[in-house]
Amino acid sequence: MLYIIGLGLADERDISVKGLEIVRTAERVYLEAYTAVLLVDKDVLEAYYGRPIIIADREMVESRSDDILEGAHEKEIAFLVVGDPFSATTHTDFALRCRQNDPPIPYRTLPNASILTAVGATGLSLYHFGQTVSMVFFTDDWRPDSFYDRIAENARLGLHTLVLLDIKVKEPNLQALARGKIVYEPPRFMTVAQCADQMLEVEEKRQGDVCGNEKLAVGVARLGSEGEQVVAGTLKELASADLGKPLHSLVLCGKKMHEMEWEYMRDFAIDKEKFDTIWKRDYSGHA
Amino acid sequence: MLYIIGLGLADERDISVKGLEIVRTAERVYLEAYTAVLLVDKDVLEAYYGRPIIIADREMVESRSDDILEGAHEKEIAFLVVGDPFSATTHTDFALRCRQNDPPIPYRTLPNASILTAVGATGLSLYHFGQTVSMVFFTDDWRPDSFYDRIAENARLGLHTLVLLDIKVKEPNLQALARGKIVYEPPRFMTVAQCADQMLEVEEKRQGDVCGNEKLAVGVARLGSEGEQVVAGTLKELASADLGKPLHSLVLCGKKMHEMEWEYMRDFAIDKEKFDTIWKRDYSGHA
Repeated sequence: MLYIIGLGLADERDISVKGLEIVRTAERVYLEAYTAVLLVDKDVLEAYYGRPIIIADREMVESRSDDILEGAHEKEIAFLVVGDPFSATTHTDFALRCRQNDPPIPYRTLPNASILTAVGATGLSLYHFGQTVSMVFFTDDWRPDSFYDRIAENARLGLHTLVLLDIKVKEPNLQALARGKIVYEPPRFMTVAQCADQMLEVEEKRQGDVCGNEKLAVGVARLGSEGEQVVAGTLKELASADLGKPLHSLVLCGKKMHEMEWEYMRDFAIDKEKFDTIWKRDYSGHA
Repeated sequence: MLYIIGLGLADERDISVKGLEIVRTAERVYLEAYTAVLLVDKDVLEAYYGRPIIIADREMVESRSDDILEGAHEKEIAFLVVGDPFSATTHTDFALRCRQNDPPIPYRTLPNASILTAVGATGLSLYHFGQTVSMVFFTDDWRPDSFYDRIAENARLGLHTLVLLDIKVKEPNLQALARGKIVYEPPRFMTVAQCADQMLEVEEKRQGDVCGNEKLAVGVARLGSEGEQVVAGTLKELASADLGKPLHSLVLCGKKMHEMEWEYMRDFAIDKEKFDTIWKRDYSGHA
C-alpha cells in the first residue's frame, strides 16, 4: 500500500495523528520536496517521526517512481507531501500510475491543510475565489503572462484570485551544465513583493485594468505557523512590502468583497485609510 | 487564547498532532456541530481525546459566544471545527468577534483538510475549479436557484464547480414550535442523488444548458475515510446513484477537463463507454 500523506503547512507536528502512525511503521518514508517545502528541515522531521526520510526530487518522482513503489504490493510505503496530497498535479499523476500499474498498486491519500483553504486566514471568504493561478519567476527572455487572462476572468465575476508563487529547489546551474557539470543553484522562493511587481509589469503591458497600482490585494507568509503574517494593501504597496521568510502567497481581491471580508482584512492594511477609501470606491459589491 | 482547530474530515485521528496536544490541555473543549459533522460520534472523540466535549450549536456560537470565550484572556479554550477553520463563514465571524472584543481576545487557527481540497480525490485538478456553491434542500415553497447563475459563470470559463450539500442538524419541528414546544427533527444530509435531481429541475426551468441530463459530474462520499466513495457519470445517472452514508458532495465538470483528469475519473464512471463518448464530444478542452 502506498500512502500519500499530507503534512500540512508549517512543521513536523501538522501531520495528522493517523498519518504519524503510518509514518512510524512504514517500510520506507519519502518526502516530496520540489513542489513545496515545510518551514522546518528534514532532520527535524526525522527526529520527531523517529524514521529516516528519503528526499524525493522531481527526477525521482517523475522518472524513477518504480524505486519508490518497490514492494508496495505487500508493504506500506509512506510518501509525504507538503500541504494536501492533491495540491500538486504531480501527485495526482503519481496516484494514476499506481492504478495503471499491472497489477494495480493499492494506494490511499490522507488529506491535510492546504494553502488553498488556509488563505481563509485573510478574512476573505473561500466561496468568493475563482480559479487559482501560479506565478513563475520572470527571466530576461521568459515573462509568461497567461496568468493575466485567468485573473481577468475571475475579476469580471467579482471573484478573488489566489496566486501561488514559484519556488526553485534543486535547479541545476545552466552554465555549469553546459560544461557537463551538475551544480545546484541555492533554493529561491518568490516573495509577495516580487509577485506584485510582476503583476504590475504585465498590467502595464496589457492595460486591462486587472492588476494595476490601486487594486487591493493581500500577501500572506508562513500560514499555519506561529510566525504567520498577513499584509493587505494596494498592489503598489505590496510591491515594496517585506513579509520575511518563505513561503509567501498573494490574493488579488475581487470586487464582490463584502463588508465582513473588508472588516476582517482592514486590520492587516499597510495604510488603513487608503484601504478603506479604495474599498468603498471600487469594491464593496461593485461587481 | 482561543484555538480554532480544524479536525479534518473523517474521524478522531484526523486532528493534527499539534491540535491534539492543545485539546488535551485546554481548559474547555467545544465542538461546532451544525455546519458539518465528522463520521464518528462525540463519545468517540471524547474517549480518544480524553476530554469532555461541549457541543456548540448555532444558537450558542452566534448568540452566546461570551460563554465560549469566558476566561479566554488567561486560559486556553479549544474550539473544534470539522474540516478547516475557514471552511464556514461562521468561523471567520467568530474570529472577528475575538479581535473586536475590548480588550481583544487572542486566537489562533490550526488549519486542516477541507472538502475544498479533498475533492482532488476525484482526479479533477484543483486549479480548474471556479467558485464553490451551496445547495439547500428544496421545500414546497422554497426552491432557490441562484446557484445556477454561479455554475453558469464557472461553466462559461470551462471550470468545474464544487457543490456543497445541505445538512440539517438540530432543526426544530415547525408544527411543534407553533404549539410552543421545541422538538428537534432527526438530522438530514443531502445525497448526491438529491442534489443532481434538484440541478436537473432547475435546468428544466432555466434552460441555459448548464446542468442538464448529459452533463458530466462526479459524486463523492465520506472523503478522507477508508470507506470513501467516488462515482462519476452524467447528472441523470447520478440522480439515481446511491453513495451510501453521509457526507456527500458533488462536482459538476467544466469543459476544460483535460486528458489526465478524464483518465483518472473514468475509472469511477457508472457507464465508462457513455462517459468517454460524452467527454470526447463535449469536453476535452471544448471551452
